[in-house]
Amino acid sequence: MTTSTPVPEQHGATVEAGAAPVVPVGVLGARGRMGTEVVKAVTAAGDLELVAMVDAGDWLFDVANAGAQVVVDFTRPDVVMDNIRFCIDHDIHCVVGTTGFDEERLATVAGWLRAKPDVGVVIAPNFGIGAVLLMRFAQEAARFFPSTEIVELHHPGKVDAPSGTAARTARLVAAARDAAGLPPSPDATTDSLPGARGADVDGVRVHAVRLTGLVAHQEVLMGAAGETLTLRHDSYDRASFMPGVLLAVREVRRRPGLTVGVESLLDL
Amino acid sequence: MTTSTPVPEQHGATVEAGAAPVVPVGVLGARGRMGTEVVKAVTAAGDLELVAMVDAGDWLFDVANAGAQVVVDFTRPDVVMDNIRFCIDHDIHCVVGTTGFDEERLATVAGWLRAKPDVGVVIAPNFGIGAVLLMRFAQEAARFFPSTEIVELHHPGKVDAPSGTAARTARLVAAARDAAGLPPSPDATTDSLPGARGADVDGVRVHAVRLTGLVAHQEVLMGAAGETLTLRHDSYDRASFMPGVLLAVREVRRRPGLTVGVESLLDL
Amino acid sequence: MTTSTPVPEQHGATVEAGAAPVVPVGVLGARGRMGTEVVKAVTAAGDLELVAMVDAGDWLFDVANAGAQVVVDFTRPDVVMDNIRFCIDHDIHCVVGTTGFDEERLATVAGWLRAKPDVGVVIAPNFGIGAVLLMRFAQEAARFFPSTEIVELHHPGKVDAPSGTAARTARLVAAARDAAGLPPSPDATTDSLPGARGADVDGVRVHAVRLTGLVAHQEVLMGAAGETLTLRHDSYDRASFMPGVLLAVREVRRRPGLTVGVESLLDL
Amino acid sequence: MTTSTPVPEQHGATVEAGAAPVVPVGVLGARGRMGTEVVKAVTAAGDLELVAMVDAGDWLFDVANAGAQVVVDFTRPDVVMDNIRFCIDHDIHCVVGTTGFDEERLATVAGWLRAKPDVGVVIAPNFGIGAVLLMRFAQEAARFFPSTEIVELHHPGKVDAPSGTAARTARLVAAARDAAGLPPSPDATTDSLPGARGADVDGVRVHAVRLTGLVAHQEVLMGAAGETLTLRHDSYDRASFMPGVLLAVREVRRRPGLTVGVESLLDL
Repeated sequence: MTTSTPVPEQHGATVEAGAAPVVPVGVLGARGRMGTEVVKAVTAAGDLELVAMVDAGDWLFDVANAGAQVVVDFTRPDVVMDNIRFCIDHDIHCVVGTTGFDEERLATVAGWLRAKPDVGVVIAPNFGIGAVLLMRFAQEAARFFPSTEIVELHHPGKVDAPSGTAARTARLVAAARDAAGLPPSPDATTDSLPGARGADVDGVRVHAVRLTGLVAHQEVLMGAAGETLTLRHDSYDRASFMPGVLLAVREVRRRPGLTVGVESLLDL
Repeated sequence: MTTSTPVPEQHGATVEAGAAPVVPVGVLGARGRMGTEVVKAVTAAGDLELVAMVDAGDWLFDVANAGAQVVVDFTRPDVVMDNIRFCIDHDIHCVVGTTGFDEERLATVAGWLRAKPDVGVVIAPNFGIGAVLLMRFAQEAARFFPSTEIVELHHPGKVDAPSGTAARTARLVAAARDAAGLPPSPDATTDSLPGARGADVDGVRVHAVRLTGLVAHQEVLMGAAGETLTLRHDSYDRASFMPGVLLAVREVRRRPGLTVGVESLLDL
Repeated sequence: MTTSTPVPEQHGATVEAGAAPVVPVGVLGARGRMGTEVVKAVTAAGDLELVAMVDAGDWLFDVANAGAQVVVDFTRPDVVMDNIRFCIDHDIHCVVGTTGFDEERLATVAGWLRAKPDVGVVIAPNFGIGAVLLMRFAQEAARFFPSTEIVELHHPGKVDAPSGTAARTARLVAAARDAAGLPPSPDATTDSLPGARGADVDGVRVHAVRLTGLVAHQEVLMGAAGETLTLRHDSYDRASFMPGVLLAVREVRRRPGLTVGVESLLDL
Repeated sequence: MTTSTPVPEQHGATVEAGAAPVVPVGVLGARGRMGTEVVKAVTAAGDLELVAMVDAGDWLFDVANAGAQVVVDFTRPDVVMDNIRFCIDHDIHCVVGTTGFDEERLATVAGWLRAKPDVGVVIAPNFGIGAVLLMRFAQEAARFFPSTEIVELHHPGKVDAPSGTAARTARLVAAARDAAGLPPSPDATTDSLPGARGADVDGVRVHAVRLTGLVAHQEVLMGAAGETLTLRHDSYDRASFMPGVLLAVREVRRRPGLTVGVESLLDL
C-alpha cells in the first residue's frame, strides 16, 4: 500500500492534499444489495482502498490477510456476531449495518471491545444521513410547536404502516414534547371516519401513504399560530446510505469502543 | 345608472372597454362573514355596482327598488328559499352560497324558474375556483394512475375528519377509477397500527392532518410506475371565494334556469 | 397467433376478459435505453405480444415477417423516416418516440399516410402521461389566477435551463393568459439580485433548480387572492414513459392518419 | 401585584404551578402593527401581566411608574435608542424588535449595560422561531449535501428579491459549506435563459417566486446521491412572531447583558 494524494470526493468529507494515507477497507456481504453499493462507494472514494470482498463461502481471513484496517459488514443477523468478534480479535475496526441488534448483543460487543481499547465499532440501524438529520431536527424543534404530525409515503409493496423510521421519529417527538411539558396537540375532531386522523404513536399522529412509483419519503409537519415548519426527506435510492457508511468508515478509527447510530458521528 | 368604461379587474375576467354596462348587484346577508367579503369584492369590481345591502331586519324590497339585476345570497337555510322566490318573482338573477340545499330544494327552485324562462339561479356549495379545479383535475387524471390517495390539512378547530371537500374529491376519484375499470390501488400492508392507512372513502384512502396555524389545504397524490402527479390547493382566506362569486354574478344573466356548482361556469 | 384471455394490466387500460385478441408488437431500437424499457413493458402487458426486436444491424423485414401489427420506434433521427416509410408500406401502425420531428417531417409522414387510409402513426415528443396532464391542467387553470410561476428541479448533469418541458409549459400558460386577456402577473420588485426572479418565458417566470440526487420534477404555482393551486410532477424513472407508450400502442389502430402528441389520446 | 397560579400557556413554555410570580410587562409602540399583536399575546399569557401601553405622545415614565420589569419595544429607529437608555437606567429589562441596529448601535447598548450588570437586553431582527430554526437546521445540514439551493416565495407586493431572510440563509449555508471544505455545488448548465438558475449568493443559488395570495414562505433544498432533504417554513400571519417575543420576555431576566438574535434563547 502506497501513500497517494487523495482526490477530494463528493459527499462533504475533505481530504488534506498529500497528507492522509489511503485507508484499506474490506467488505463483508459484498455481493448483497447493500454490499454491492458499498463496494462501489469505497472504490470511488479517493481516500479509501477496497482490499477485500467477502461473502458467504469466502474466507474471513482474507480481510486480515489483505491488510484491511476497517471492515464494513452488511451480512445477516446469524453471522454478524462472529464477523465482529473476528475483526476485534484482529484489531480491525468495524462499521456494521446488519440488522437485529438488541441490548444484549450491543453489551456483548462492548464487552469484547474492553480487551482492545484501540479498536472501534460503529453499529447503525440506518446510515441515511438525511433521515438521521430529519429525526434530529424534528426532536429539537418539537417543543416550540403546539402541533406536530408525521406523513410518511412509500411504495405499495411495503408491509408495515407506519414505517419504522416514522414511528421512531414520532416517539422522539413525543419525548421532546413531554420533556418540555407541552399539552397534547389541539384537536377538536368529534366527527371522524375511522382512520382519518392517522395512527396515534405516543400522542403524535402518523399517516402512511402508499403509492405506486414512490420509494421512501417522510414529512414532519409542525404548526404554531400563523406558521408551519415542514421537514421532508426523500430517499430515491440505496445510494443515499453510502455517505453515512463512508463517514463511519473514516470516523471509526478515531472513535475506539462502541458507537451506536450515525447521529453521534455527525457532530451536530 | 350610467354607462361607464369598466376597469379591467384582477381575477381573469376581461371587460371590453367602453362596451358592457355596469351590472347593479344586491347582497343578502351583507353583514355576515361571507356577505362582508362579497360587499368588498363587488365594490372593487369595475364592471359591477353595489346597489343594495340587506341583512336580517332590512326590507327585501330594497333590492328590487334599487334596481338590482343580480342578487348574491349568503344568508341562512331558513330564509334562503323565500329570498330566491322573491328574486325570481321580480326577475332578478340569483347567486346563492347559502348551504343546506338537497335534491328537494333544488327541484323546488327549478320549478319556480320554469315560469320565468329568462331568469338564472346559480347555487354552489363551494365558490373556491381553485378547489373546484383541483376536484376536476383529480377526476380527469385518476384513470391514468394505479394509486390515488388524498391528504387534507386543516386548523385544529375543525370538527369533522376528513373534510367534506376531501371526501367529495375521494368519491369523484373513486367513480372515475370505477368507470375506467381500474383495480383497487395496490397495498401490501399486513402489519399496521390502527388508522395509519387513513380513512377508506369508496376505496380511496384519505388522511386528515390537524395543525395549529393551518387554514384549509388539500393534496391529491397520484402514482404510477416511476412518477407522481400531485395536485395541491391551499386556501388561506375567505377572499379566495370571491373570484368564484364574481364569476357567477357575471355569468348568471347569460344562463337562464338553474345551475348547480361553480364548475359548470368555468368552461373547462 | 392465438386468442388468449388478457390479464388486466396495471396502468389503467381495461381488457374485456375473453374478448380482445393479443396485439403483436415489434420494437425498433430494442437495445437502446428506451427500447429496453419498451421491450419489458410490452412483455409484461397481457394484451400485447412482443414478436420482434430490431436494432442497428438487424433486418427491418423481421417485423413484417413476424406479423407485427404495431411497431414502436425509439431509434435515431437519421433512420426514423425510413422506418416509418417501411411500416406504412407494410400496413403496420407506428408509435414513434424518436426525436427530431419538425413541420416538414410531419408533413412528409402525413403525405405517405394519405395512400394508406387505414394505417395510423402516433408521433410524440414526451410519452409521460403525468407530464402531459400537468401541462394540460396548467393551461386550463391559468386564466383563473392573476399569477403563475414555474419551478423545475433536475439533476445537476442537465445542460439546459430551464428544461424544455418547463419552457413549453410556460408558453402554454402565457398563451392561455393572453387569450383570457389577463394583465401581466403583479410584481412590485424594484430591488433584485440578478437572476433572483428567474427566467422570463413569454412573461411567465421560470426557475430552474439543480440538485444532486434529483431526477426530473416540475411545479406550476398559481396564485389568486387567498389561495394557491400547485401542480407538481415528479419523474423518477424511465419506466414512467411506458404507460404512455402502451396507451399509444393500443390506440393507434383505432386512429388512422397522423396523431401528434400523447395528449390527443387521453380523451381529456 | 399578587402572586397568582399561572395558567400553562400554548407555545411550549412550562410554568411551575404555584411557583413563579406573574411578570409585569410594558409595551412601547403599543398601537403599531407589531405592538398590537404583542399587547394581545402578553394579555393572553398566564404568567405575564400587561401593566403599561405606551405609544408616540405618551409618557415613557408610565412604564416605570407601572412597575414593568420587562419592556417590549417595537417602535422606530429614531426613538429606540432613547427608549433602551431609559429602561436600562430604570433597571427594566428590554426585548427589542425595532429594526436598524448596526454594530455601532449594538456597541453603544453594550456599553450602557456595563454599568448595570443585572439588566438584560435582547435585540432581534426576526422573532419568528420557525424561521430561526430553519436557518439553524440549514446551517447544520449543509456540509452533508453536495448541493443546496433556496426557493423563497412571497406576495407580489414585496420590493426586494430575494428576501432578506433567504439571503441570510444562503450566506449561512455558504459559510458552513466553506468551513467543511465542500467544492461548489455541481452544475452542468451550459445553455441557460438569463435568470433561470436564480441569484448567486456566495455560491448558493436563490430563487424568488412572487405570487398573488402568498404571504412569506421559504424552502431550503439539499441534495446528495439518492436523497433530498427539504426544510420549509410558511409564515401566514404576524402572530407567528409572538412565541419568540414571549420567549424573550421570559428569558431576558435570566440573561444579563446584551443578547442578539432569538436563536441564542432557544438552547439548541
